[in-house]
Amino acid sequence: MNEVYITRRETFNSAHRLFNPEWTDEKNMDVFGKCSNPNWHGHNYVLYVTVKGIPNAVTGFVMDLKQLSSIINELILEKVDHKNLNLDVSFMQGIMPTTELFAKAIYHELKDKVKDNGASLHSIRLHETENNFAEYFG
Amino acid sequence: MNEVYITRRETFNSAHRLFNPEWTDEKNMDVFGKCSNPNWHGHNYVLYVTVKGIPNAVTGFVMDLKQLSSIINELILEKVDHKNLNLDVSFMQGIMPTTELFAKAIYHELKDKVKDNGASLHSIRLHETENNFAEYFG
Amino acid sequence: MNEVYITRRETFNSAHRLFNPEWTDEKNMDVFGKCSNPNWHGHNYVLYVTVKGIPNAVTGFVMDLKQLSSIINELILEKVDHKNLNLDVSFMQGIMPTTELFAKAIYHELKDKVKDNGASLHSIRLHETENNFAEYFG
Amino acid sequence: MNEVYITRRETFNSAHRLFNPEWTDEKNMDVFGKCSNPNWHGHNYVLYVTVKGIPNAVTGFVMDLKQLSSIINELILEKVDHKNLNLDVSFMQGIMPTTELFAKAIYHELKDKVKDNGASLHSIRLHETENNFAEYFG
Amino acid sequence: MNEVYITRRETFNSAHRLFNPEWTDEKNMDVFGKCSNPNWHGHNYVLYVTVKGIPNAVTGFVMDLKQLSSIINELILEKVDHKNLNLDVSFMQGIMPTTELFAKAIYHELKDKVKDNGASLHSIRLHETENNFAEYFG
Amino acid sequence: MNEVYITRRETFNSAHRLFNPEWTDEKNMDVFGKCSNPNWHGHNYVLYVTVKGIPNAVTGFVMDLKQLSSIINELILEKVDHKNLNLDVSFMQGIMPTTELFAKAIYHELKDKVKDNGASLHSIRLHETENNFAEYFG
Repeated sequence: MNEVYITRRETFNSAHRLFNPEWTDEKNMDVFGKCSNPNWHGHNYVLYVTVKGIPNAVTGFVMDLKQLSSIINELILEKVDHKNLNLDVSFMQGIMPTTELFAKAIYHELKDKVKDNGASLHSIRLHETENNFAEYFG
Repeated sequence: MNEVYITRRETFNSAHRLFNPEWTDEKNMDVFGKCSNPNWHGHNYVLYVTVKGIPNAVTGFVMDLKQLSSIINELILEKVDHKNLNLDVSFMQGIMPTTELFAKAIYHELKDKVKDNGASLHSIRLHETENNFAEYFG
Repeated sequence: MNEVYITRRETFNSAHRLFNPEWTDEKNMDVFGKCSNPNWHGHNYVLYVTVKGIPNAVTGFVMDLKQLSSIINELILEKVDHKNLNLDVSFMQGIMPTTELFAKAIYHELKDKVKDNGASLHSIRLHETENNFAEYFG
Repeated sequence: MNEVYITRRETFNSAHRLFNPEWTDEKNMDVFGKCSNPNWHGHNYVLYVTVKGIPNAVTGFVMDLKQLSSIINELILEKVDHKNLNLDVSFMQGIMPTTELFAKAIYHELKDKVKDNGASLHSIRLHETENNFAEYFG
Repeated sequence: MNEVYITRRETFNSAHRLFNPEWTDEKNMDVFGKCSNPNWHGHNYVLYVTVKGIPNAVTGFVMDLKQLSSIINELILEKVDHKNLNLDVSFMQGIMPTTELFAKAIYHELKDKVKDNGASLHSIRLHETENNFAEYFG
Repeated sequence: MNEVYITRRETFNSAHRLFNPEWTDEKNMDVFGKCSNPNWHGHNYVLYVTVKGIPNAVTGFVMDLKQLSSIINELILEKVDHKNLNLDVSFMQGIMPTTELFAKAIYHELKDKVKDNGASLHSIRLHETENNFAEYFG
């Protein structure tokens, strides 16, 4: 039998700012534009976590999506929802909070715990706005 | 020339229940939670069927999407729409109606007929709710 | 100051069937079509509850939407989610579970509790599918 | 001839915090929960501006929607997009940035300029998340 | 008992052009911008038809939505879908095909037939793009 | 470090017609149905452009999405938005404007300019309607 891919969608809201402290304000504004505004801005992020595996012969589940949701809530949402990505989130310290690097960081936070539950983390898709999203496959 | 992938979206409504008749009600409730409720529940399923191929030199079609829609209607929707997946659907008999196994079953129902029409079935994506979906690639 | 209207969206999944027990199966099929299929079908319902009022001078809230969500969960979702509208839902007994009458019934279940919390129930909008919805204003 | 209503949708991203400086942090957390977190959070707001009027006999327009979009951009988006509603937005100073009061404030910012352009502002609908929105009709 | 409102969503695709033949090309471009381009452009229109009435005591229907869909298909979609609003649609002859006037024209095409079926036409909402829509209430 | 994929969504509106001038009208109608109607029809196209690469060590960007949006606007949208794909678009001359071939043509228009900006074009996804889309990976 072949692998099946299942995806859980979750949403959360965070503030952030794109800003390199080693640069002047002018250079930050040059590179990051209004994403660099000093008093923060924020987003309703939409997160798609895709795991893959052979469905269990008895339950028909690759992994119980309620369990996957619990893992995402514990390891990601409780740390980022209604928080400031630059100031409040330990796993984002020292990382520029672009959609690209945030998606990658979420991937690495979730990978082991998904494996412990018998599935394999395939990808993270993270929407910052309705027009912009990033995907990371490890 | 390289292959192009085209996708047709269809929707349907079904009742189902996750339930293992060899288990007690307590064990079913333990494993499947409210998805195991005895009087059924249901979903507006959203189905994405993706086929691939080299576009025809004259028509520019990988496959006529009206034709693909007809095939999906004949082989899938007439059997599952406004039906009970556990009781009414012949191709789901003996199969736990999780999103994973339902997507896989749909893939196998469609594969040959898509091939007969000159394209190749690439994937089935099946959304059970706005937060949960499964994908199968054969 | 004028009233502001606020809306909370919630989702749930139920099975149902349109069926008049005083009619023959043929007449039920004539009137209700496949919505009358004997083994049920189901939907991902989307519910919009709109309340209105003057925002509180200190909090700026017409009503705390977390509180509105709690009320909807207690009075509606716990009774209808993953349930059969014809068989399991006390407030729908003796009522044909069309979108129209279901929306009206939800309105009457919620009205007093919203008032107890200082706002006024304005409307219920209930989507049965992406193409069909009903609204009731009391 | 009767009035026709036309609506323009716009999107923007802001940071905010629900916080009463006259209260202790505990009381703020009690009333506003995680919306009160000190380092801000943010949203992708979706704004619907509805104006009404008799369509012009020659153009068929109630109001040119490109013009309406320009007015919204000038009077609202340039002030709130990628900004902090509590700190950066002059028309929100002294106002708790709930969805209710933010919608009302936007209504009053736009009303006169819409009138100057020959139409009448009917309503503001402001979505803070996919589950929460406010409407104000003046 | 009070009235309930029910809505049917339909979609169609048309070409159109905003153009006043009594004006020069320059004046048309001034007023209508790229909507005036000579070789047409087009849209995926989304149409919401809302009717109201007292639900039937036996069926629970304000009006059978399958019947409403049939009426919309016969009176509107067969005339406008995959057609040119300026050239092909009899009920739009002599009318500038703005969203405003197109919504109003659809209202008048549907009104009597809805009444013949025992309900009352409440409104037409017509989306031209994801950012622009018009509503007409008669 | 592994590659990250980022996607920019853009929308535009065009008219088109599926028509082979070497065929009779009957044969065109046979093969293309109402998509062959002589006076054109049109769509709100939704375009997803996905590029991949290693995020820049300093900015955290695979590629600045504002820059990607500018490139798409310059090379695609200015040529196709509010235009007729058969008559007005130089890069579609001699190409049947099916979703498949239009997606492929957009891919080839964008490929080099994305490379010049330090990323790699991964795929084009082009939605013609809410039910039909095509993808091309080069």
